[in-house]
Amino acid sequence: SNDVKEYENYFGLTLLDRRSDKRTDSKWLSKKQSHPTTVYILFSNLSPLVTLAGRIGSPQQPEVKLCRLYHKDVEQYMNQTEEGTLIFLGVELQFHMNLLAACNGRVLQEDEEDQLVAWFALSIDSASAEKFQQKHEDCYFLHPPMPALLQLPEKEAGVVAQARSVLAWHNRYRFCPTCGSATKIEEGGYKKSCLKEDCPSLQGVHNTSYPRVDPVVIMQVIHPDGNHCLLGRQKRFPPGMFTCLAGFVEPGETIEDAVRREVEEEAGVKVGHVQYVSCQPWPMPSSLMIGCLAVAVSTEIKVDKNEIEDARWFTREQVVEVLIKGNQRSFFIPPSQAIAHQLIKHWIGMNANL
Amino acid sequence: SNDVKEYENYFGLTLLDRRSDKRTDSKWLSKKQSHPTTVYILFSNLSPLVTLAGRIGSPQQPEVKLCRLYHKDVEQYMNQTEEGTLIFLGVELQFHMNLLAACNGRVLQEDEEDQLVAWFALSIDSASAEKFQQKHEDCYFLHPPMPALLQLPEKEAGVVAQARSVLAWHNRYRFCPTCGSATKIEEGGYKKSCLKEDCPSLQGVHNTSYPRVDPVVIMQVIHPDGNHCLLGRQKRFPPGMFTCLAGFVEPGETIEDAVRREVEEEAGVKVGHVQYVSCQPWPMPSSLMIGCLAVAVSTEIKVDKNEIEDARWFTREQVVEVLIKGNQRSFFIPPSQAIAHQLIKHWIGMNANL
Ligand SMILES: Nc1ncnc2c1ncn2[C@@H]1O[C@H](COP(=O)(O)O)[C@@H](O)[C@H]1O
Ligand SMILES: Nc1ncnc2c1ncn2[C@@H]1O[C@H](COP(=O)(O)O)[C@@H](O)[C@H]1O
Repeated sequence: SNDVKEYENYFGLTLLDRRSDKRTDSKWLSKKQSHPTTVYILFSNLSPLVTLAGRIGSPQQPEVKLCRLYHKDVEQYMNQTEEGTLIFLGVELQFHMNLLAACNGRVLQEDEEDQLVAWFALSIDSASAEKFQQKHEDCYFLHPPMPALLQLPEKEAGVVAQARSVLAWHNRYRFCPTCGSATKIEEGGYKKSCLKEDCPSLQGVHNTSYPRVDPVVIMQVIHPDGNHCLLGRQKRFPPGMFTCLAGFVEPGETIEDAVRREVEEEAGVKVGHVQYVSCQPWPMPSSLMIGCLAVAVSTEIKVDKNEIEDARWFTREQVVEVLIKGNQRSFFIPPSQAIAHQLIKHWIGMNANL
Repeated sequence: SNDVKEYENYFGLTLLDRRSDKRTDSKWLSKKQSHPTTVYILFSNLSPLVTLAGRIGSPQQPEVKLCRLYHKDVEQYMNQTEEGTLIFLGVELQFHMNLLAACNGRVLQEDEEDQLVAWFALSIDSASAEKFQQKHEDCYFLHPPMPALLQLPEKEAGVVAQARSVLAWHNRYRFCPTCGSATKIEEGGYKKSCLKEDCPSLQGVHNTSYPRVDPVVIMQVIHPDGNHCLLGRQKRFPPGMFTCLAGFVEPGETIEDAVRREVEEEAGVKVGHVQYVSCQPWPMPSSLMIGCLAVAVSTEIKVDKNEIEDARWFTREQVVEVLIKGNQRSFFIPPSQAIAHQLIKHWIGMNANL
């Protein structure tokens, strides 16, 4: 039907159904861990294992792809060291939807549920990683992860964002922040509980037990004349790169107020109307980039050198030159997979429609 | 000018300019702490000190307001106990803008900066709180904070959201999650650093040092026919209350995907198009509620009893009855200060325009 098509369109870019209900089903999880169709993706030092999909003779660049491994490939590295962490990522969505369609909508039976292809992320220590690579010479750990992560196919980038964020959380949040004791990992990797019996973190529900997601605002600031936008650069950027301003949302702040505060802090420009456009998870380590258009009501730039190195108004023509004509002599912007690129493009597209 | 007016409109609901640049200026901070115009708001067990603005003879309910205290009122409770925590909240925005206007836009000089009215939040232990209340009989700590917090004037609710979120963070995050050591509070209360010299959390920038903000999606789900909406209730709600579905955004997930996942998990309903409407900080302890409209592409409800108690389609007429006519015999929704109320109202308003 049309509805199902529409639904599939919306899910077109999602590879996995997270199936959070299975996180507490330890019997199902442990069965899936050793199931022959189960897919494993491997991490070392928060870098995912990838390979190049070589297209010999093709004029295009080789494509970077996640290595999809099986239980037999990773078995010997599991439960081996303290550093080894296993995260349940979900089941393949397309497969699930085909199965549901074949069953005409009725609830799946246990043996049918069992056909679902589960995905796990496994993090291994450096010694194991080295051993693994010696055996699989066509694979390598994508390091540094940025900007290389942006080369992954969009569907896989989403899975890596999920896995890397949760692994980074386990990596940095080893001890209970409430009492300082050691913790244990539960629920397929999505929960950690304090091991001290009378810790207050065990009474009631507290965010100390759950993965952290940091909301960040990133904004395309438009000049009051509608024909310029404000782009800035940090010292650590590659020379010539300019992009949208961004900053962390603070406690007790709305998205719109965070946009106004950050633009005023970093560039001294006052912003009035703010409009949400789209968002993107950013696993460095676990941000949610919330992309907005912001209309400036003042124009004088006062750069805060502690935060950024430079900020300038660019004309529509300058941006079109870089974005569409690919002329990057004077400056350039992040690649198309980055939300900043999409926000800048959105503004250009909007203007084109005027 | 018109631009300045527009700008002021956008900031109309904000009481304070956070002035995050002052957080690292310890000389300025300590001068402001004892300055006679500085405003203190007091917390005990994460509950703010309030008073009733009595309007004798007025037919309206008395208004709950924050108690604005001065240095002389709180001096004896400062730096007294370990539990005492001081947070710099910002400077009064209206005062700042008047001053700027009077100075015709030029940069403020030091003695002018000094006129800015600073606000601090001070958290005191239970014994001090009792002592304080004995001396100030017209004041009381608003407990439990919800739903009473919703009674505060909107501007003050924003300040309480900011202060309570940061205090709740200090309350639960006392130890370094990376190594388990004790920490110290810095930068006016917005940073905490591990006291162990060689802790990895001190190398580079890590979110372990900064307050946590948990993004939550809350959604008004609209039936494919456009004339019903999906509201649910949790067991712990007051009897008869129904509201929008909601849930935490997970690592590696977009806002839109989180909406689709939560609605399918909690009510078994599939969602296609999702549209951001507005957001609200929710200091319980530190969420950012991201409000969306979501268009369902399926209609059959399968309630997950682990997550909610009930979910139903309500007709537009039923909702209008409750929202506008105040007839709450069959069910009721949260009060107007809650974002759920605003989302429901937004949908009704949209429909009215069709
Ligand atoms: N950051 C978080 N803080 C609290 N609960 C969380 C968080 N992330 C996920 N959860 C889950 O959400 C449930 C509480 O959701 P709610 O009933 O909407 O408050 C908890 O039982 C957890 O399973
Ligand atoms: N959750 C957070 N994680 C990292 N940095 C944060 C966070 N919240 C606020 N900050 C501040 O933001 C700065 C880094 O911002 P950026 O340069 O945009 O990555 C840090 O130096 C901190 O002062």
